[in-house]
Amino acid sequence: MIMVDLYPGVPIVDQRLEIVERKGRGHPDTLCDSLMEAISVALSQTYLKEFGTILHHNIDKGLLSAGSVSKHFGGGEVLQPIELTIGDRATRQSGGRNIPIADIAIDAARSWFEKNMRYVDPHRNVSYRVMLAPGSEELTNIFSFPGIKAANDTSATVGYYPLSPTEKIVLSLERYLNSKEFKSVHPETGEDIKVMALRREKNLDLTVAMPLLCRDILSEDDYFNCKDILVREMTKFGASWESRPYETEWCRAR
Amino acid sequence: MIMVDLYPGVPIVDQRLEIVERKGRGHPDTLCDSLMEAISVALSQTYLKEFGTILHHNIDKGLLSAGSVSKHFGGGEVLQPIELTIGDRATRQSGGRNIPIADIAIDAARSWFEKNMRYVDPHRNVSYRVMLAPGSEELTNIFSFPGIKAANDTSATVGYYPLSPTEKIVLSLERYLNSKEFKSVHPETGEDIKVMALRREKNLDLTVAMPLLCRDILSEDDYFNCKDILVREMTKFGASWESRPYETEWCRAR
Repeated sequence: MIMVDLYPGVPIVDQRLEIVERKGRGHPDTLCDSLMEAISVALSQTYLKEFGTILHHNIDKGLLSAGSVSKHFGGGEVLQPIELTIGDRATRQSGGRNIPIADIAIDAARSWFEKNMRYVDPHRNVSYRVMLAPGSEELTNIFSFPGIKAANDTSATVGYYPLSPTEKIVLSLERYLNSKEFKSVHPETGEDIKVMALRREKNLDLTVAMPLLCRDILSEDDYFNCKDILVREMTKFGASWESRPYETEWCRAR
Repeated sequence: MIMVDLYPGVPIVDQRLEIVERKGRGHPDTLCDSLMEAISVALSQTYLKEFGTILHHNIDKGLLSAGSVSKHFGGGEVLQPIELTIGDRATRQSGGRNIPIADIAIDAARSWFEKNMRYVDPHRNVSYRVMLAPGSEELTNIFSFPGIKAANDTSATVGYYPLSPTEKIVLSLERYLNSKEFKSVHPETGEDIKVMALRREKNLDLTVAMPLLCRDILSEDDYFNCKDILVREMTKFGASWESRPYETEWCRAR
C-alpha cells in the first residue's frame, strides 16, 4: 500500500524561529559517516563482483578517538595518531570463498582521507581498528532468496524539498569555505567547519567554527588578522541572504 | 530572549499515518547511550566532590563491538566478550590533582550492567577500551569562570507532551516485556527488545523483536510453543489500545 498525504505542518519559512546546523567535511561526525559510507560502498562493490549480489553487512558504526599533537605558531606535529574503530558486521565468507573485509575497509578509509583531507596522512596520522564481526545469522539469511530486494534493517528515509533560504545559506557557506578555490586562497583554514544559523523573524545570525592551522599562523597578531579577513569574507557571503527578499523564491516553488 | 510559539503542525493523532519505534533496555544502541550516561553521571559526581564543579567532558560516544558465542538448545557460552570502546574526552587533571577517569568509567559501566542485564557478567563477558582523550583546550576554558553555568557544546533539547496513544502502547509494551514481573514469569526472554508500531487510520500493527534465550529453550517445539504464548500475551496487552476510543483522552488534554 502506498499512502500519499499533504505535509500537514506549517513550513519552516512561515515560522518565526529557525535553527540550522551544518557539520562540514572535516567534522569528526562527518568523518565517521563519510568513512563508513565509503567502506560500505567498497564492500558492496566487492560482493557484487565476487558473488553477483550484495551480501549482508551493517557498516554504519564508526568511532574516531582523538590523538594528540604538539603545536606552536608556525608548525606542530602529531604525537599520537587518531584511531578509527570500524564496526559492526560484515559477511566475510560465502560459498567457501573468503573476503578480506579488513583490508577492503582500511583501503577504502585511507583513500577517502587522501581525497578529502589535505593534511591527514592516512598512513601516519590514523590507526585503524577493524572490529567487524560476521553478519548475524538471522539477518544474513534474508539475502538468500534470489530476485528479492530486501532491506537489511527496519529503515526509513525522510527527505524534503526545497531548502529554506536559511538552510541554503548554511549549506552553501560550508561548501564555499571547504571549496578548492577558498582553500587555495586561504590554506590556513582547516576542514573541521561547523556553520550554525539562528533566524528570528527576518534576522539572521550566523556562527562559524573553523580552525586556523598552526603551520600557517605565525603569531598572535597573524591569528587575529586572519580572523578579521575571514569574518569579512563570510559577511560578504552572508549578504546574499539578506539582500534576497524573504519568502519569494521559496513560496513560488509551492 | 525567550520566544514562545504555538506548535505549528498538525498533531500526529490527527494524521492518517503514524510510525513509532522503541529500542528496549538491552538493544545495543540503548546500551551505548545508557552506559555513556552512567559514566558521565559518575564522572560529574567525582568532579563535584573533588573540585566543587563539573569539569569539561564529552562522554556521549561509545561503540559496542559484537563478541561471539556458541549456542545450542538448552545452553551456550560466550567465546569472545563484547567490547565497549568509551570515547571521547574528559578532563583528567585540574589544580595539580589527577582523576582516575578510566577506573571511574569502567566501574560505572560494570555497575550499570549489573543492575540492568541479568545475564551479562560485566567482568567476564565485556572488555573495556577507554579512549578518553583530555578535554580540548578551547572548551575546557569555558568552565573556568565561576558562577557561570555554561553548556559545553551547541546543544538543543526537544520535548513534547502528551504521548499519542500509539506512542504510549509502544513504550508501555517494551516496559512490560522488560519488567521484573514479566521476566520472572518468562525468564526465557531477553532484554534486547524492539517494539515497532504502524498505525494507518485506526488500525494498529505492532511488531516486536525479542530474543528467546537458548539456556531456557530446549527444542524447536519448545521455541514455537514459547513464541505462541508470548504472542498471546502481547495481543492481550495490545487490546487495551484497541478498546480505547481513538482521540478522546489525547484531545481532551489539548
